[in-house]
Amino acid sequence: MAIPFDRGYYKQPFAKLVSEYPAEDIYPPADFRVEWGPVFHRGRLDGSARVLIIGQDPAQHEVVARRILVGTAGKRAQGFLRRLGITRSYVFINTFLYSVYGQGGGTRHIGDPGITAYRNRWIKAILDRSPIEAVVALGGLANTAWQNWLASPDAAGRSSLPFQHLTHPTWPESSADTNAERLVAVTKMLENWNDGLAALKPIIHHPDTTEPLVPYGTAFAAGDLPDILPDDLPPGTPAWMRTEEGWATRKGETPLEKRRTIVVRVPKGVLPA
Amino acid sequence: MAIPFDRGYYKQPFAKLVSEYPAEDIYPPADFRVEWGPVFHRGRLDGSARVLIIGQDPAQHEVVARRILVGTAGKRAQGFLRRLGITRSYVFINTFLYSVYGQGGGTRHIGDPGITAYRNRWIKAILDRSPIEAVVALGGLANTAWQNWLASPDAAGRSSLPFQHLTHPTWPESSADTNAERLVAVTKMLENWNDGLAALKPIIHHPDTTEPLVPYGTAFAAGDLPDILPDDLPPGTPAWMRTEEGWATRKGETPLEKRRTIVVRVPKGVLPA
Repeated sequence: MAIPFDRGYYKQPFAKLVSEYPAEDIYPPADFRVEWGPVFHRGRLDGSARVLIIGQDPAQHEVVARRILVGTAGKRAQGFLRRLGITRSYVFINTFLYSVYGQGGGTRHIGDPGITAYRNRWIKAILDRSPIEAVVALGGLANTAWQNWLASPDAAGRSSLPFQHLTHPTWPESSADTNAERLVAVTKMLENWNDGLAALKPIIHHPDTTEPLVPYGTAFAAGDLPDILPDDLPPGTPAWMRTEEGWATRKGETPLEKRRTIVVRVPKGVLPA
Repeated sequence: MAIPFDRGYYKQPFAKLVSEYPAEDIYPPADFRVEWGPVFHRGRLDGSARVLIIGQDPAQHEVVARRILVGTAGKRAQGFLRRLGITRSYVFINTFLYSVYGQGGGTRHIGDPGITAYRNRWIKAILDRSPIEAVVALGGLANTAWQNWLASPDAAGRSSLPFQHLTHPTWPESSADTNAERLVAVTKMLENWNDGLAALKPIIHHPDTTEPLVPYGTAFAAGDLPDILPDDLPPGTPAWMRTEEGWATRKGETPLEKRRTIVVRVPKGVLPA
């Protein structure tokens, strides 16, 4: 049985883009984990993407899988797309190529011209080649990223695309101090996402599946954390990296040790006990 | 400045090969770490390889980098090739797609028809497309792998290729109990490698560099552990994964925990202290 995989960045302009990524001179190591390398995208670069999603920054799962949005945030976003009938015609890029380190680094650098210019090259490359019907920003920095694209010379003269700015998928975890607060935040986020679904559903004219829209309830339900497609990951990637959650952690006794170290752990049940 | 990278398995027959790899039904999980996924190759698949090297099996660095022979064994083999003037016109494959687990698993399964058949598809794909001038086996199992290819129907009718069976690059570490023993073993291995160099140098007609052959001394010298080329690794791979040694370890209190866990640690000096 053939196992699909992502053929990667072999075609132009993507081959050129991934060989010309900004390094420490553009992304200061005080605010970005440049030491783990840039992570570029996930999804279709072959001209079949209908929805462009802009996320924020890669974390520990993403630098291991070398594709963005494979952790919790990514699975939640994948579930959002599924409710729109988009099961494979998507492409994800991030606001930042590297994980934001510490507090406020993202906000501090969202206007940096070198960061914006490279991100805009990706947006241009995708929009030039894919019949994108809608753009979604996950969180405030991604929203700014899209606005910075719209203000750029390369965006001039293009017809305007439907756009939704959604609450970031892990905002409930980052904003809540208690589990009760987290559950309230999830409900609030899903209300925001339901508005997004209602706005996007009618303007996505070429979905992969055509079931009627079912909005979220007050909490995530079964099916809202779908597996990542094998088509989205490099060949040979173990299945648990796309079907399981929480298989990579940062660990260390000191901030420096924690920054240096990622522990990858095959989830329980994959191996016989 | 453009950073070269490996464009991967986008062309046939490699795209098909990496989507049809043998899984647990062929590689029993009792003897192979199938849970980390297969790792296929390193080096040129574009028809420019002049030397085919067959290694043994991937370890922890390789499943993180998703290319084989990037750890100590790989760097030593890279240094061997450099002495032959081969700095980029090489391709590495392994005897096994997955890391051998426990004692004797490699020997037990070296004759398995499913394992051999898939490996032979890779050898055929490489020999059909690349002007290979010499084949090198690292260790006894790799030697058997090559003999099993020669005995296969797809090898019939081809002109015979110069072949060298070398001592496996980390045999000194795996055979010695003390550092003194290890140093003796290194000397013995380098004598074996010098025989290989002497045999191969005259029959490699298209080296990348043309310096005269300088044999090894009694120990590895500066330059014998060259960096892995960025061209050999996926785009975005941090430079320290190809320039530094020993950045991934298996860790766990129990055998199962150790099997489940790989700790990746950015080497000292990459991050400011």
